[in-house]
Amino acid sequence: MEQQVVECIPNFSEGKDQSVLDAIVGVIKESGCNVLDASMDPSHNRSVVTFVGAPDDVEEAAFAAAKKASELIDMEKHHGEHPRIGATDVIPFVPILGVTMEDCVEMAKRTGKRIGDELGIPVYLYAKAAARPDRVRLPDVRRGEYEGLKEAIKTDPDRKPDFGPGELHPTAGATAVAARPPLIAFNVNLNTTNVKIARAIARRIRESSGGLPHVQAMGVTMEDTGLAQVTMNLLDYRVTSMEFVFSKIEEEAARRGVEIVNSELIGLVPLDALLDVAFARLKLEGFSRQRILDLIT
Amino acid sequence: MEQQVVECIPNFSEGKDQSVLDAIVGVIKESGCNVLDASMDPSHNRSVVTFVGAPDDVEEAAFAAAKKASELIDMEKHHGEHPRIGATDVIPFVPILGVTMEDCVEMAKRTGKRIGDELGIPVYLYAKAAARPDRVRLPDVRRGEYEGLKEAIKTDPDRKPDFGPGELHPTAGATAVAARPPLIAFNVNLNTTNVKIARAIARRIRESSGGLPHVQAMGVTMEDTGLAQVTMNLLDYRVTSMEFVFSKIEEEAARRGVEIVNSELIGLVPLDALLDVAFARLKLEGFSRQRILDLIT
Repeated sequence: MEQQVVECIPNFSEGKDQSVLDAIVGVIKESGCNVLDASMDPSHNRSVVTFVGAPDDVEEAAFAAAKKASELIDMEKHHGEHPRIGATDVIPFVPILGVTMEDCVEMAKRTGKRIGDELGIPVYLYAKAAARPDRVRLPDVRRGEYEGLKEAIKTDPDRKPDFGPGELHPTAGATAVAARPPLIAFNVNLNTTNVKIARAIARRIRESSGGLPHVQAMGVTMEDTGLAQVTMNLLDYRVTSMEFVFSKIEEEAARRGVEIVNSELIGLVPLDALLDVAFARLKLEGFSRQRILDLIT
Repeated sequence: MEQQVVECIPNFSEGKDQSVLDAIVGVIKESGCNVLDASMDPSHNRSVVTFVGAPDDVEEAAFAAAKKASELIDMEKHHGEHPRIGATDVIPFVPILGVTMEDCVEMAKRTGKRIGDELGIPVYLYAKAAARPDRVRLPDVRRGEYEGLKEAIKTDPDRKPDFGPGELHPTAGATAVAARPPLIAFNVNLNTTNVKIARAIARRIRESSGGLPHVQAMGVTMEDTGLAQVTMNLLDYRVTSMEFVFSKIEEEAARRGVEIVNSELIGLVPLDALLDVAFARLKLEGFSRQRILDLIT
């Protein structure tokens, strides 16, 4: 049988206590998955784990992680800059190899139902797994955050969860579960401490402000260096490529008298997205992936 | 066991008669190898076959191809622009996957010995397989070509072959066998018909004229478009990268008032060579191949 690989990138509302993240990563590994990255962000008080595996293992790992987080994280005590609704804030499933988006939608539904039924945590399906159009966008699902949702889930019929109880879990809150295509989390760092410049560039390039299609962007300050950063999600690199976004930022930065210091990719990246950059840089014509040595089998 | 792949790029002294190339390609395929490219160059009267396979299969295919070429090509009747010493002019083995350079040196020695012993064709080892320092460079091995070597092999002790008889095969001449790292055949086209500009740039960048290490370069005119081209072999992209060479040509071209139209890659290219270009373009830091989706297994 063809190999099947699903990626899962759950986010947890704990960004300071390493022992919590270690415990969560532990149960993911015990489920037979390969943890590619696990990083804590103290200023957002949030952790992101990236793991891959066979569909059944990934589903089991996602549930086990949500269970562990519900035991270790108390949303009543959580503060952080980043919007969130629960201990396990989001669980997106991403089809990588030999798996369709529909398969991942089914994974999201089964996992969501199980979290609702067995852990007593209300679950909202979003993105490709959304059961209603007003839940496709994650910001709509997270509106009001943990504190606001506590009341709204009980009083507003539009906030009734897709699975689980009609009120927040007393410590774990709620969880949003999704299927979505691979996205590229791409950050570009500028040689300025003026975050306003990063914010202005982010406004120029993001789709929601009339910029480039399938680009989400914010301007932030990096904690370690103090430099301004344009932090992005590229939702479809085949429409708006990394090369194009990077050139645009370079141009917008130059207009404001600053330069790009370096860039970073978070999590996984499709090979084609990187090859597109190389091909564009070299103005390469008539080449195909079949002539890449390492891809010959 | 880990998969093992060796690339072999034999050159044959026949660039006009398709049936000869077809027969050679036929025996390579019969040996279980995957032929990636087989091209004839009438002006050089020369063919190049690119194939890959497991080490044993590649060794067998290389011998079978040399045997077939010795039956079909008569060097007494061969004329062409390109330097050559035999029907099978060169046989380089290139380690691709799960194979060391030392493994390929051993392949070159075994294949050379067999061609010498069984086909009665004198063999010179070159590049990484060279047994003497004055045979590392292929031009030194081919000095005098077929016509000159006919006498020199008998009279000059320094031209005594590494394997096989002390005189040329009456129709197949001699063969040079090597192990070498992958090289990148990279051409950059300029928006000028003035070939002198391409030649001047080639002189600036090639190692033999004091330019960039591990770069061979010439300026030529492209037959189809009439545009000037810098045609290159990058012998070690880890020392001199495609990105660096391209930037240098861009700069040298700009100084002469011309621009790069596009570029092309001939044959196979290691993935890392292309990724290096993407990483350099994006000033990407802290990234590793392990986070490329397609390479996860």
